[in-house]
Amino acid sequence: MKTKKALFIGGIKSGKSLNAEIYTLKNSLKKPIYLATTEFIDDEMQKRIDAHKLQRSAQFETLEEPLKLYNAITKCDSSVLIECVSIWINNMLYHGFGFDEMKRELEAVLALDKTVVFVLNDVGCGIIPENRLAREFIDISGKLSQLIAASCDEVYHTIAGISMRIK
Amino acid sequence: MKTKKALFIGGIKSGKSLNAEIYTLKNSLKKPIYLATTEFIDDEMQKRIDAHKLQRSAQFETLEEPLKLYNAITKCDSSVLIECVSIWINNMLYHGFGFDEMKRELEAVLALDKTVVFVLNDVGCGIIPENRLAREFIDISGKLSQLIAASCDEVYHTIAGISMRIK
Amino acid sequence: MKTKKALFIGGIKSGKSLNAEIYTLKNSLKKPIYLATTEFIDDEMQKRIDAHKLQRSAQFETLEEPLKLYNAITKCDSSVLIECVSIWINNMLYHGFGFDEMKRELEAVLALDKTVVFVLNDVGCGIIPENRLAREFIDISGKLSQLIAASCDEVYHTIAGISMRIK
Repeated sequence: MKTKKALFIGGIKSGKSLNAEIYTLKNSLKKPIYLATTEFIDDEMQKRIDAHKLQRSAQFETLEEPLKLYNAITKCDSSVLIECVSIWINNMLYHGFGFDEMKRELEAVLALDKTVVFVLNDVGCGIIPENRLAREFIDISGKLSQLIAASCDEVYHTIAGISMRIK
Repeated sequence: MKTKKALFIGGIKSGKSLNAEIYTLKNSLKKPIYLATTEFIDDEMQKRIDAHKLQRSAQFETLEEPLKLYNAITKCDSSVLIECVSIWINNMLYHGFGFDEMKRELEAVLALDKTVVFVLNDVGCGIIPENRLAREFIDISGKLSQLIAASCDEVYHTIAGISMRIK
Repeated sequence: MKTKKALFIGGIKSGKSLNAEIYTLKNSLKKPIYLATTEFIDDEMQKRIDAHKLQRSAQFETLEEPLKLYNAITKCDSSVLIECVSIWINNMLYHGFGFDEMKRELEAVLALDKTVVFVLNDVGCGIIPENRLAREFIDISGKLSQLIAASCDEVYHTIAGISMRIK
């Protein structure tokens, strides 16, 4: 099975995660790896995580890594689903890393000869927020989504649970 | 004429409503029913309603129902345009109903042998809001849009007045 | 070369500007004109402008006009890229102009026998903002995007750097 890279982008609760999971399962000979990037967990987050875990049942191995995506993925011997890049950006910002470091990390992952599926929130289609950090997040997220999409073999945009292939 | 279900999803002022009206008129042998879900009306809302009424002129019968969609639609003897599901979600939340009740109500509507056209705002492509209620609204809206889309024969995504069929 | 009108719409940092630049260069026999609409410049804005300038290098003539698009464009003897309509709407609102004046201005531009490429932020896919001015901006932006798209020969929606032709 030839390795490939894919990006699933869409709004909050658009259904991109479920479709990315189905896609990853189809594109893996062995049990794929679910790379959970969540670092900061409050009650609300925990409920989301539990709902997600239930959703993917026993079909994935779960691996937790909030920051060092390359280090984690390079050791994986199966397809990897990164859930999700948006939370990873958040973690990186929190730990003082900027766009250039995120770019380098993602470029290293994109260069691996492994099947990697990226999930990312589309956050740029609302009104420009007054909050400077929110604007910075949108900027970085947008630029990284372009970077990932440019190197992916397939890109899917999800609305109302429907994933349309746009590349 | 075989009955069918359709969903028009898109951002605020994307033009989804006008295209949904045209679609409903085309898919109705008799004068179709415009199911207005608006319950809370301030001056700004009134202006929007007046503009919408002018837009659809005398081509629709108007029926007002803020909550009980199934009860209202089951009595209709023509195609029904629900304008809009987003406002209905808002009403349901205000009256203390949760996701499960909304899901049941919509599933009942989707099971009717009637042509029903759903209009829904795409609200999940901005930055995640700090306001908890706003996040809850986005979550419910996203999950219900997936539920509706899964049961619809046709789904349209509207940008800049252009409705693209995505299912 | 027959003149034409095109619209590039997409979220913040979706990559629409770069693709609109490439499109304008392809659809111009002479060096095209970059019509910069920015009027109010703070440090953050200046950085964005510098990044944009660097991006388009020496391939465009730059013309600055925050308000009177028709007057500026009617004198141009090459293809024009308006970067961007969203900032122009902002300027017009600031100077007390309303939707009707913006509509008239754009209709005059759309009627010109010149190649004009419009760039516009898609701002309507987040939660409806509490701020009244933000809602007004979304409304005007949405209605004008419909107006522009209706008169354009080609419309492109950009996500993650990928511009899909939707008209």
